[in-house]
Amino acid sequence: MTMTWTLHPDRALPADPTTRPIAREIYQAVAGLPVVSMHGHVPVEWFAQDTAFSDPADLLVVPDHYLIRMLVSQGATLPELGIPALDGSAPAETDPRQIWRRFCAGWRHFRGTPTRFWIETELVEIFGVTERPGPDTADAIYDRIAAVMAEESFRPRALLDRFRIETIATTDPAWATLDDHATLREQGWGDRIRPTWRPDPVLAVDSPTFAADVQRLGQAAGIDPTSYAAYLDALRAQRERFKRAGALATDHGPFLADTTPMDAADAAALWDRAMRGASVSTAERDAFTAHMLFQLATMAADDHLVMQLHPGVCRGHASAQTARFGADRGYDIPVAVEFTEALRPVLDAFGHHPGFRMIAFTIDEDTFSRELAPLAGAYPSLRVGAPWWFLDAPDAMRRFREAVTETAGFANVSGFVDDTRAFCSIPARHDLARRVDAGYLARLVAEHRLDLDEAIDTATDLAYRLPVQAYAAQ
Amino acid sequence: MTMTWTLHPDRALPADPTTRPIAREIYQAVAGLPVVSMHGHVPVEWFAQDTAFSDPADLLVVPDHYLIRMLVSQGATLPELGIPALDGSAPAETDPRQIWRRFCAGWRHFRGTPTRFWIETELVEIFGVTERPGPDTADAIYDRIAAVMAEESFRPRALLDRFRIETIATTDPAWATLDDHATLREQGWGDRIRPTWRPDPVLAVDSPTFAADVQRLGQAAGIDPTSYAAYLDALRAQRERFKRAGALATDHGPFLADTTPMDAADAAALWDRAMRGASVSTAERDAFTAHMLFQLATMAADDHLVMQLHPGVCRGHASAQTARFGADRGYDIPVAVEFTEALRPVLDAFGHHPGFRMIAFTIDEDTFSRELAPLAGAYPSLRVGAPWWFLDAPDAMRRFREAVTETAGFANVSGFVDDTRAFCSIPARHDLARRVDAGYLARLVAEHRLDLDEAIDTATDLAYRLPVQAYAAQ
Amino acid sequence: MTMTWTLHPDRALPADPTTRPIAREIYQAVAGLPVVSMHGHVPVEWFAQDTAFSDPADLLVVPDHYLIRMLVSQGATLPELGIPALDGSAPAETDPRQIWRRFCAGWRHFRGTPTRFWIETELVEIFGVTERPGPDTADAIYDRIAAVMAEESFRPRALLDRFRIETIATTDPAWATLDDHATLREQGWGDRIRPTWRPDPVLAVDSPTFAADVQRLGQAAGIDPTSYAAYLDALRAQRERFKRAGALATDHGPFLADTTPMDAADAAALWDRAMRGASVSTAERDAFTAHMLFQLATMAADDHLVMQLHPGVCRGHASAQTARFGADRGYDIPVAVEFTEALRPVLDAFGHHPGFRMIAFTIDEDTFSRELAPLAGAYPSLRVGAPWWFLDAPDAMRRFREAVTETAGFANVSGFVDDTRAFCSIPARHDLARRVDAGYLARLVAEHRLDLDEAIDTATDLAYRLPVQAYAAQ
Repeated sequence: MTMTWTLHPDRALPADPTTRPIAREIYQAVAGLPVVSMHGHVPVEWFAQDTAFSDPADLLVVPDHYLIRMLVSQGATLPELGIPALDGSAPAETDPRQIWRRFCAGWRHFRGTPTRFWIETELVEIFGVTERPGPDTADAIYDRIAAVMAEESFRPRALLDRFRIETIATTDPAWATLDDHATLREQGWGDRIRPTWRPDPVLAVDSPTFAADVQRLGQAAGIDPTSYAAYLDALRAQRERFKRAGALATDHGPFLADTTPMDAADAAALWDRAMRGASVSTAERDAFTAHMLFQLATMAADDHLVMQLHPGVCRGHASAQTARFGADRGYDIPVAVEFTEALRPVLDAFGHHPGFRMIAFTIDEDTFSRELAPLAGAYPSLRVGAPWWFLDAPDAMRRFREAVTETAGFANVSGFVDDTRAFCSIPARHDLARRVDAGYLARLVAEHRLDLDEAIDTATDLAYRLPVQAYAAQ
Repeated sequence: MTMTWTLHPDRALPADPTTRPIAREIYQAVAGLPVVSMHGHVPVEWFAQDTAFSDPADLLVVPDHYLIRMLVSQGATLPELGIPALDGSAPAETDPRQIWRRFCAGWRHFRGTPTRFWIETELVEIFGVTERPGPDTADAIYDRIAAVMAEESFRPRALLDRFRIETIATTDPAWATLDDHATLREQGWGDRIRPTWRPDPVLAVDSPTFAADVQRLGQAAGIDPTSYAAYLDALRAQRERFKRAGALATDHGPFLADTTPMDAADAAALWDRAMRGASVSTAERDAFTAHMLFQLATMAADDHLVMQLHPGVCRGHASAQTARFGADRGYDIPVAVEFTEALRPVLDAFGHHPGFRMIAFTIDEDTFSRELAPLAGAYPSLRVGAPWWFLDAPDAMRRFREAVTETAGFANVSGFVDDTRAFCSIPARHDLARRVDAGYLARLVAEHRLDLDEAIDTATDLAYRLPVQAYAAQ
Repeated sequence: MTMTWTLHPDRALPADPTTRPIAREIYQAVAGLPVVSMHGHVPVEWFAQDTAFSDPADLLVVPDHYLIRMLVSQGATLPELGIPALDGSAPAETDPRQIWRRFCAGWRHFRGTPTRFWIETELVEIFGVTERPGPDTADAIYDRIAAVMAEESFRPRALLDRFRIETIATTDPAWATLDDHATLREQGWGDRIRPTWRPDPVLAVDSPTFAADVQRLGQAAGIDPTSYAAYLDALRAQRERFKRAGALATDHGPFLADTTPMDAADAAALWDRAMRGASVSTAERDAFTAHMLFQLATMAADDHLVMQLHPGVCRGHASAQTARFGADRGYDIPVAVEFTEALRPVLDAFGHHPGFRMIAFTIDEDTFSRELAPLAGAYPSLRVGAPWWFLDAPDAMRRFREAVTETAGFANVSGFVDDTRAFCSIPARHDLARRVDAGYLARLVAEHRLDLDEAIDTATDLAYRLPVQAYAAQ
């Protein structure tokens, strides 16, 4: 079946005829607001170099692990999708048109997923595609996308305007020297493109690269990490460098949410052992990470960088695939997380501190109503992070609002974060979030639990004011 | 924006045009039923003394930790909201009008929460307020409430009639002598205002006040707790005193749901150590609590007091705030709970006992479909407690019915409990629960899963018959 | 109130007037598809002997633990419902009409449960009952059912045609010799009625009957299990026998999902101890089960039998009832389950193996969005099992789609399984699942997240193609 694609103006709004017109009115009030993208993975060099993208597969398929994993789950292999092996040995598919054809052949597998919604929006709105992807339409769509990509207006910086992105945060290594960010800042882009400091590797005392990573940190910071105390100084110095480069936040992906500090001497001894390359157990790794999260919270209360925490993911679950093709190939799988006891040390110390802000993300939905909403509904320093990663989808975002709002209200929640390296999907992702929030608010209005003017005001908070405020220097 | 407030007759009913008229019909059948409030925290002395309330802040804001915590999460401090420090040192705000203004200034933070629904209902229905709270309306609303509060008809006993409260249960300390309850009983109020026995402190072997608390229990019971056996006798005697004073239930808030009995000699030895003030570990505390829950279940099977269990809360999470301002300031945060293995000892022993009834409450929603509904759908002695505390909200109550009913039906669930010390919110809370249940039942009717006459009959069960039956002497 | 029963054609479809007509169109497209029942508990001898059923109570009440447990939870006893004690001592009710009357008297307790939906469908569609069950209608309904049951067309094999069951899988003991299946195969029924191999008892090293059960396995397999190696050979041989008899799958109900292999020598030593009747701890039992799940996965990758895993149930929770009346009396209660870490060993080894397929079922809904959907959305060998047991209900099935689809899509999910020994409920169960799926898909269409032609195609996948494919030899 061939059909002409159009995007329905009411897509992702509630179907019931009482609620939909209200949702439409709320959505219309926020649809055109700027995008504030405070947590993401778009490479900063795209903006610094502002060069054209290479081809449709490399733009839309290869870097998007949401797409890759779904196609693999239905029988494709990573090499067939253009993923190179780390050792360069695998005969990866190198023809972007072939990769695009595979994606189009698997289009049906995305039914019911947000990927389907985002890509559909991108293809129609950005590329003017008018046919549903499939084996018979793959080539025509490929050519259409390639033609649009070749236009001058499709350079990264121009897209920032086209996508109405007011601010975009990148995620940068702990040891980054931020040269690209410095260049952008000199050129006047500094308030628009901001770095984020991610120190996970320099806390991972059980990692084989720990000592080398700490050395890289020290080099960047200009402080030789000859001791645990110097290491803390180097961390502080790098935070300061990031802050000067425009950073508003740090980003932390520990396995556990635990923030219990160790005895300082024990921490220093463990750090020494790890730096010497001695074997460190998983339990010791977890204890040191918890200790360091507390230390970093102490630093954050000083320098006011917002602390983003997103624990509870088993990274690289498929060991053989990860060893061969590297991280971020779709094999990061959530586990259950505990926040109430885990965050108590940091919240006891800094939960009412005027300079401290933590945003806690999770993919364990159970914790929304049970732990995160009660915590954020009490502690002024804590915000519940937006539904993230697997939960960045229409029904999951609705469940998030339903689970969190009755206990924490709207103002104790961060704004939407797109968390993506798929640059072209950013407007579609924010648009979808605004639609889902409009639908949720419309239901409150239709059930006479909120007045319409309040709902519109709240929608503006959610789409624009809250992400600005949540990440503003405290 | 100023607008005249009215309460929409269909508020909190489903919006879809097929379901709403059915919900309205079901709701109308139960809207006027008496309120049966079997679990709450209104102080008995209000009824015994029947004196006027002091001021709007003290009536509606200061004692309600739902309100307090939300305002604190958005930047207010406890002293600013009139909460006195335990040592009397803090210069707490003492002007009730100032406290009320702070509350009205924070009105927007309650959007989407049940607090918003309850207070709105109270202000309009009880106090005749016609304007939305806010900085510009705070004083006028304050004066309006104060005027109504001064009327003779606003005394606690008169409000019982006005609120159509047929029965209200208070929660009383393990060592209470129940003088107020005795007075009320003599005056003919005994079947309407009933005590509930809450022994948590006299089970808490790790508490610094344990020995003193047990002594108070012994004094009230007239049994000197010189041994573990005498302690058990004192517990039995106090239960009997409560029963004679009209109690139908006991109330238990352990950290875990565990009910595994210890070896009796070990329990006695641990009790001895605790009474001597020796250090007791958290694990020993948990083991002793589990042991005592089993002992109390044994007593309950004898004296037929209904055992209310609500485990899984980390009390006083913010240590510094709790040390300074005491308990119940909004820092009680849920944790995950396990019921299946934990309740097995008690259910093995008494789950089919004709004299035993346990009602298990939780704030860990995961357990509703996974554990509590399957357990209550099998054991005649177990009922699932109503959605409680943070879950006492429109969407959470709907989720509760959806999670529990398909496995446990309606009859294995306790009726609604308001669990509140905010006396004026009781009618609004029960009304909201009836509306949400009407909406759930209406959906079953609209989906042809239930006939309308059955839905109306069931709504009457839920609003009135079930709470009466669940707490009736077995 | 007496009313004439009819089944509304739109039952269990969404009520909202926008979505319902779409749901009706989708449902109509799949309502008449054959039933593929790949996991169930109908006794094979019914088909082998093809004799008439005995009476209404024995057909509809006594063997259905969904019904039994609900009536017990509301005060009936197992003997009153015709359940015999294991020792024959209990004076169980033996008059089927009395049992049927008790069931009809308790009809109201099933309101809101899927049992109500299934029985209502059966009574109206299969037996032509026109009155709601109740004390006053019990006898007439009993007589009506008995009359229909006496008809020649009510024999098991005839019902397979009437119920449009294309394939039905039974569940058979590890040591089954499959004589009934052999007979059926000779008579041409082999592709329609297939066995399933369930080896739980021969993995349970802590069971008092373990050694005897392993001997029975060895006898059936023709391999004397004199050693751990011979035991593995016997397992392999029995799998082969089942495969030759038409089996497509094996079935596993461990307490944990853990699949971590032990050191082979340790496993052999533990097996030796268990065979000698030595005491084995629960932890050792769990370790051996995990080890054996890995071994069985290895065998499955060879012989391509699909591995059905459904962990996380505390069996026989009520010890006294279980000791007296045996297993499957309604006292199997779920517990929380962990899949992400637990399945890693098997998925690391076989998650991309072209011959291996695992279908993971759960009653712990939390794991759907957190663990199972992410895992099945990445590994080609893993499918999420249909909502099963307590979750085989309208709202639970809707929640399943909402929790799983956005991450795993539709194709990474097994088709519906009825998992029942209540033969007459099979068509009603599949019909209800098709209705709920039609409702879910209709909402996606109404929200413009899916096109109608895609929804109809997907509904056909879910109702027919996916269960066939999921269980097809890999």
